[in-house]
Amino acid sequence: MPAISKKGIQMPESPIRKLVPYAEDAKKRGTKVFHLNIGQPDIKTPQVALDAVKNNNITTLAYARSEGSEEYRTKLATYYVNNNIDVSANNIVITTGGSEALLFTIGSITDPGDEIIIPEPFYANYNGFSTASGVTVVPVISSIENNFALPKIEDFEKLITKKTKAILICNPGNPTGYLYSKEEIEKLKQVVLKHDLFLIADEVYREFTYDGLQHTSVMSLEGLEQNSIVIDSVSKRYSMCGARIGCIVSKNDEFIKTAIKFAQARLSPPTYALIASEAALDTPQRYFDEVIEEYVERRNTLITELKKIEGVKVANPKGAFYCVVQLPVKDTDDFAQWLLEKFDHNQETVMVAPASGFYSTPGEGKNQVRIAYVLNKKDLIRSVEILGAALKQYNS
Amino acid sequence: MPAISKKGIQMPESPIRKLVPYAEDAKKRGTKVFHLNIGQPDIKTPQVALDAVKNNNITTLAYARSEGSEEYRTKLATYYVNNNIDVSANNIVITTGGSEALLFTIGSITDPGDEIIIPEPFYANYNGFSTASGVTVVPVISSIENNFALPKIEDFEKLITKKTKAILICNPGNPTGYLYSKEEIEKLKQVVLKHDLFLIADEVYREFTYDGLQHTSVMSLEGLEQNSIVIDSVSKRYSMCGARIGCIVSKNDEFIKTAIKFAQARLSPPTYALIASEAALDTPQRYFDEVIEEYVERRNTLITELKKIEGVKVANPKGAFYCVVQLPVKDTDDFAQWLLEKFDHNQETVMVAPASGFYSTPGEGKNQVRIAYVLNKKDLIRSVEILGAALKQYNS
Repeated sequence: MPAISKKGIQMPESPIRKLVPYAEDAKKRGTKVFHLNIGQPDIKTPQVALDAVKNNNITTLAYARSEGSEEYRTKLATYYVNNNIDVSANNIVITTGGSEALLFTIGSITDPGDEIIIPEPFYANYNGFSTASGVTVVPVISSIENNFALPKIEDFEKLITKKTKAILICNPGNPTGYLYSKEEIEKLKQVVLKHDLFLIADEVYREFTYDGLQHTSVMSLEGLEQNSIVIDSVSKRYSMCGARIGCIVSKNDEFIKTAIKFAQARLSPPTYALIASEAALDTPQRYFDEVIEEYVERRNTLITELKKIEGVKVANPKGAFYCVVQLPVKDTDDFAQWLLEKFDHNQETVMVAPASGFYSTPGEGKNQVRIAYVLNKKDLIRSVEILGAALKQYNS
Repeated sequence: MPAISKKGIQMPESPIRKLVPYAEDAKKRGTKVFHLNIGQPDIKTPQVALDAVKNNNITTLAYARSEGSEEYRTKLATYYVNNNIDVSANNIVITTGGSEALLFTIGSITDPGDEIIIPEPFYANYNGFSTASGVTVVPVISSIENNFALPKIEDFEKLITKKTKAILICNPGNPTGYLYSKEEIEKLKQVVLKHDLFLIADEVYREFTYDGLQHTSVMSLEGLEQNSIVIDSVSKRYSMCGARIGCIVSKNDEFIKTAIKFAQARLSPPTYALIASEAALDTPQRYFDEVIEEYVERRNTLITELKKIEGVKVANPKGAFYCVVQLPVKDTDDFAQWLLEKFDHNQETVMVAPASGFYSTPGEGKNQVRIAYVLNKKDLIRSVEILGAALKQYNS
């Protein structure tokens, strides 16, 4: 039998995936499972986007332009300009989700053996894209004690080698919910300029900032034009995760030209999803106002309820719709499985994402979980109640 | 300024792409351009697929399952069983187009520096996916003299090294239109079993076989279960190139498990396109009968007309909707550009794909072009008339 590649063997499995069979078994036993583990919001997609697809007049479903149509990129550039990101259509490459935007970016700036520094905990799939590209993730640890703020710049500098090609941040953060301040982004600017690195910012949660705080894009900083790359997606902004449309934004022409070659090799982003995504740009502001209001209430509810449980520590999220929670257990991988396999509270239980999958340093985050507040308030309250009861039973 | 990766610099540009600005200029001058250069058919997408999307009742456009839903894969398995490929849902991973199927396959079975042997001329993007994965394409040349039949097995064996991981074929072939016989596939089976290699077959043109000839899938051969991988797509079968749905099919569980890890990292194939693709499986047989009839007539028209031009040699295609044509010119890159830049025949011209982009051996195919017969018969006749007049003028 021919052999699987080393890379293929190293590709990480989704940290949640291994729990799925236990969740399925729980449901088969008649136990209701509240899903605090996933980034799939229950929020409705804007009607204008859904309608555009329903009203399409396609007769031959043809390829779209590899980097996205001039029209869509032009319209999208206007959205960015309105968000303090001064770009034109030529600075944008449309991709099949933020996932592909990351893959093309890593491919364009790294060769096998190169390194990318990422504050951890980080979005688990950064590991997958790096492994697929033969690139090493070098983690720099951030701490729940200060809500996962940017690690000290000295900590980054200690890790920079000749192989370092970029620093990658997620802002606001998945899984941390942390929103980097303008000062923190400025510090990153100084270090990437000093060491001639790219600064890649995954800004797919740009709209989701709370408590009156403003998002600072890496592309809004002067002097960083040749170094900054934004990864974006319609998935969270318009609650259309299933569209699979994202983009790369950068003023570095050489980089964009290279990313387009990757885009050409795969021919086209999905045409129906492009129709939805272009139409979504006409979503009225009140849609976002309502969504943000809903998330703030959910966050407040979740944090208030969690703090009632003894031994629980929670980082207060200022953006996105996740938080990392420290639990009074030794091994959340075991606890998360136990919740599904052996526990129920009046025939109900919860599924959480063990945080170990969001760290690349072995042993880190073993007592943490990520909770996504993508459920309505009533379900969130009930979920935390179940979690509290479970912790009592698990620890006794 | 931070540097682009070596890989990024090496990524090939689309061979047609460099001609696009000349085609645009020609159109601006008022010259009509017949596109013989592209694989985008004018054939209508099955109504049942278009209707399924128009009638969707989505309110939140959610992620699909990374490897595709159980339902779709089960229905798709039935399609394969009906095509002599005895598989179940577990042997299938749904991908974002055949492109992603190739990328996941290469990632799952090769590490940087490994080699894949491919008969040339071959689909240009095989170069792109290989470069993106740090893999070397080792070409084995096939010849227009025998319609691009399978090269001698000795020619393959001479090229096999410790780094060789797979042989990749496209059957029926893009750009050649050649349909491998059962005997040829049997020969490939012997060589991959002897050297413990994977045999990857891009079978996206499976339906497009002519003159009563039958397609032989690499997955229909006994004893090849652990070695054979099929790359597939809905793009050509249902004329829905813009859907971006494809799949990997293999009975090698270890390989499928690995491919799923790549699929998980990118979360989900596009949801709207999945709806269209699942519905497309209900396309009535008469749709295919009509399409095949149309392509046979187009092929016959094209070949008949081309043979009327002095100095033109054409490989007779038995499948797909391309043929490779040898022209009485030294450099078809130059000729193709000249056609758009300097020539018109009553304000009309043609765009062809220079074949050099389909070879990886430098200098090969310089006097060949690929012609896609994706236009109606009247346009094909006129296109060849223009080509004949152009050759006369170019050579005088």
